[in-house]
Order: sequence, then structure tokens, then C-alpha cells
Amino acid sequence: MHLFITGITGFVGARLAAWLAARGERASGIYVAGRPTPATADCWEVDLLDRAALGAALERSRPDAVVHLAALSHVGSSWRRMGDYFQVNVLGSEHLLDAAAAHGARRVVVASSAEVYGAVGEDELPIGEQRSPAPASPYALTKAAAERLALARGAVVVRSFNLVGAGQAASFALPSFARQLAAVERGESEPVIRVGNLSARRDFVHVADALAAYRLLAEDGVPGEVYNLASGEATSIRQALDRLMAVSGVDAEVVVDEARLRPVDVPVLAGDAAKLRALGWRPEHTLDDALAELWAEARGEVPA
Amino acid sequence: MHLFITGITGFVGARLAAWLAARGERASGIYVAGRPTPATADCWEVDLLDRAALGAALERSRPDAVVHLAALSHVGSSWRRMGDYFQVNVLGSEHLLDAAAAHGARRVVVASSAEVYGAVGEDELPIGEQRSPAPASPYALTKAAAERLALARGAVVVRSFNLVGAGQAASFALPSFARQLAAVERGESEPVIRVGNLSARRDFVHVADALAAYRLLAEDGVPGEVYNLASGEATSIRQALDRLMAVSGVDAEVVVDEARLRPVDVPVLAGDAAKLRALGWRPEHTLDDALAELWAEARGEVPA
Repeated sequence: MHLFITGITGFVGARLAAWLAARGERASGIYVAGRPTPATADCWEVDLLDRAALGAALERSRPDAVVHLAALSHVGSSWRRMGDYFQVNVLGSEHLLDAAAAHGARRVVVASSAEVYGAVGEDELPIGEQRSPAPASPYALTKAAAERLALARGAVVVRSFNLVGAGQAASFALPSFARQLAAVERGESEPVIRVGNLSARRDFVHVADALAAYRLLAEDGVPGEVYNLASGEATSIRQALDRLMAVSGVDAEVVVDEARLRPVDVPVLAGDAAKLRALGWRPEHTLDDALAELWAEARGEVPA
Repeated sequence: MHLFITGITGFVGARLAAWLAARGERASGIYVAGRPTPATADCWEVDLLDRAALGAALERSRPDAVVHLAALSHVGSSWRRMGDYFQVNVLGSEHLLDAAAAHGARRVVVASSAEVYGAVGEDELPIGEQRSPAPASPYALTKAAAERLALARGAVVVRSFNLVGAGQAASFALPSFARQLAAVERGESEPVIRVGNLSARRDFVHVADALAAYRLLAEDGVPGEVYNLASGEATSIRQALDRLMAVSGVDAEVVVDEARLRPVDVPVLAGDAAKLRALGWRPEHTLDDALAELWAEARGEVPA
């Protein structure tokens, strides 16, 4: 199977390309920034807003399916950069869907986010795909809008809950905590860890389990359908930090940093992935596995 | 010509229905709240999120064209009610487009907003339709997303700049000013007028000129095209307030009220309506006409 990956140098895209190569399958894709391009894939530097370049890359690639991961993906920064988020996440997705249709990709899998659900009551967890989106941040709004475009064109939509693992940017909470703890261990900073909202509870999925889900949906996802990619359990950022400290063996004082608090936060998210499981998906990694990976990466060891 | 109007009891919808009736044409439509339903039109209380009821209304109406005006439309409140704005403005528009296609409406005109442009440099005014949207508020983001859905389905999109005239809710700046001045005139309040951001400059269009534009586009708008509905001139809210005071003959101290300041404001908007003019549209009313209407309405006189 040959997958064309948008955002192939990103957190998930780079790992997906490497994983496919390790399985003896083919990856190609586009990027605008990020890690070095993977040696195992044909990669082109293409902005999603450049329709001509996007079409040319797909024409040269001629993949079996497309996995659309490229996005601006930080809830916090979306409040300050709404126009950019609209252009990349909504217009960019529209261009990608148009180009994939024009160049005969059999199936398009569009990565969306659990953030589209917005605030959900404790008694309504885990959330099923039939729940109407009620986005509560500009990021979530752009993803919810991109979903509508994708579904109208018969793409498969994946609502990923919080993916976690080595390779994630330090602007996200858990990689930031791991790097701060590593700096404490090296004696480079005082034993203090600066955090945002610790009470938010999220459904963490190891990124390695997400790779299998994307590939599965590229093969067997039903066009026009939405699939949750979730563990089903909600863990507070506070609990995840405690477990990360236990994994690292480093103790530090936890200090709330006002600058890290978001204007609005969805208090809790946990998803029902029964639909994805019905296709055969099973998570094989735990949150502790992901935290161990983050810790190894923060210490400069090669990630798992 | 028979137009089906969503939001037929709203600011623009109610006036459009009355204007069509006065021309001997037919209007029908749906509403969820607002003014009493116009006696001259078949009206149904239908939520855009209720696909079955929406389809039934269109099936009974069988219009020549649809003018989709219904929306949550207040930039300020969109920051606090993002999920509602997404559901009504994006999902609601999707449902309307689906229903119109299923029930054979020849053309659908979708009302969008100049707010989709976001912040534009002084030297780039007036803005043409080819400019890429860069929404800067949740309201603008939902309208920009609804546009994409509309254009993909071959609807005609109208980007209205600031429509003004009698019938507009007091949550908007100019009607609020008119009501405050009327209260001063009646001696019901001290000679003080509370305002938000007066420096923002907007392109005001008399709502009566908008009615003609919507009807024209329902007849002659090119499917899949966007049309600015604009005067081409930017007037500051401060200037508009000064002119309203001159029209009213009431003087009052202007006090900035923090609660009326928005989290983000687009500093200036002015649009190039050459495309709409090429179809034959000409504005026939001035901002002073609109202010005189607002003043008459605020004093309890029958609006023009």
C-alpha cells in the first residue's frame, strides 16, 4: 500500500512514514516545515495553499490513498492566529480534497480532533461519533469546518483524541513537562516545573497506535464516515504529570504559569472508539509507554 | 418570482419579505425568533438543525430561489458562544444547501459577511472578492466556513458589509446609539451615551439597497461566485455617531464602556462592489437615510 501523507515531517507524519517503510510499504508526501524529510519517502516542499504544486505532487506520487495530517494544531495559539488557522486548516483541506479527487486517490483520510466536541458532561462520556460538534476554540472550529468539507466529498474523518509520544513539539503540555524535568535532572534549572491548566482531563492515545489506525482507515474506512481514535479513559494533566515524574525519578515543585493558561478550556474529553475497533483496531501501547518515550527523548536518548 | 427566505422574521428577512410583497412578488420562509411573521408570506417555525422540518417547509414552498439569511450574527457574542455559532452558521447552512438541492430550488443565495476578510491594510482598500479570507473572530470563521460549503454546492455567496437601517437589534452599535439618544431626549436618562470601540471604520450599506441586491443575485448571480455588497467607503463609528447626533439634534457626552469593547476588532473594512454593479445593482440610499430611519424608530415613529 502506498500512502501520500500531508505533514510528512510532522509529529505523526514522520512516524507514519517510518512505520510504513519498516513494514515494507510505501510513503510519499508533502511538508512545509518540521523534521528532516524521511529518507524512505518521496517528499516535496508544498504549501497546501498552492493548488498547482499540490496537484503536481499528487500527480507524481499517484498513491493508493491520502492521509491528511497537515494542520496548524495548537489550541492556544489558534486564539491569536485565527486567520492562519482558517487558511491552513479549512482552505488547505479543501485544496487537498480537490487535488486528491482530481488525481484519483482511492480514499482520503482526514485527521480531525476530539476538540470538535467541545464541553461535554461527565455523564455523557465516552463521547460517540454521533454527537453534534460544538467547538469551543478557533482551532476546534477550523477542524469542525474541515470535517464538513471532507464528509461532503466522501472522505473518511478520524477524530483523534490526545496523541502522545516522542516527536511532539514542546508547545504541548507533556513534552514540555518532560523537557523541563530533564533540565532539572541535568542541573540546568531549579527543581521547578511550570504548567498551565492541570485539571483538564484528556483521553491519551499513544501515537504508535494512531499510525495503525490511519493505515487501517486508509484501507477499510467507510467513505463519509467519522471514527473516534480514543482510549476511552480520561486522565487529568495533573495525573499524567505525576506519572511522568514517577517514570523520570525527578521531583520538582509545580508552579502554575498564567501565560500557559488558555482563554477557554474544554474540561474533559474521552471517546468511544467502538466503530474503529469494529474494523479491527486495538491499542497496543499505554500512556506510561508514551511517557517513557517522552522522557527518553527529553534526555537525548534515541526515542523508541 | 418566489423567494424562500431563511430568517424571515429577522432584520433583513422581514424587510425583504415586505418589499417583495409590495412589488407583487411572493415570499415564504422560516424563522425561529424575531418579529411577528409577515402576513404577506407563508412562514414556518423551523430550526435549521431540524433537517426533516426544513425539507418539509421547502417542499411545501417550492420557491424559485432561496435566500439564506438566518444566522447568529453578532461578532461580540460569538466569542462566548462558539459552539452555537458553529451549529447554526455552519451545520445550519449545510442543511439548508442540502434541502434546497433536494427540493429543486433553482438558485441559492447565501448571505455571508465582510468580516470574513479580517484585518486589511489601508492601502488594500476597497477589498475585492478575490482576497483570501482571514477571519479574525469566531463569527467570521463560521461565515467563512459556510461560504466554502456554499461555493462547493454552486450557491451564490454575498459578502455584505455593514447593513444598517430600522429593525436592527440594539446589540449593534448604531441602533444602540439611536435608542440611547432617544432616552436622553425623553428625559429618561442623563445626557450620556455609552459606546464601545469608536475608531473601527466600516462600510455601511442601507438595508433597503441590500434587498435589491439579494433579489438580483437570486435571479442573475453566477453559481459558485462571491459578490461584495458594499458602498466602497469606510466611515468610523465615531463619524456615524456624530452624524446620528446631528440628525437627532440631541447632544450627549460620549463615554467608553469597557464591557462594549470586543476582544479583537478588525480596524477597517471597505469593499469593492464592482462585480455586483456589473449585474446592475446601484445603491439608492445614503448612510444619513439609514440614520434618519434609526432615529425615527428609536423615537417610536413608524420607520420609513
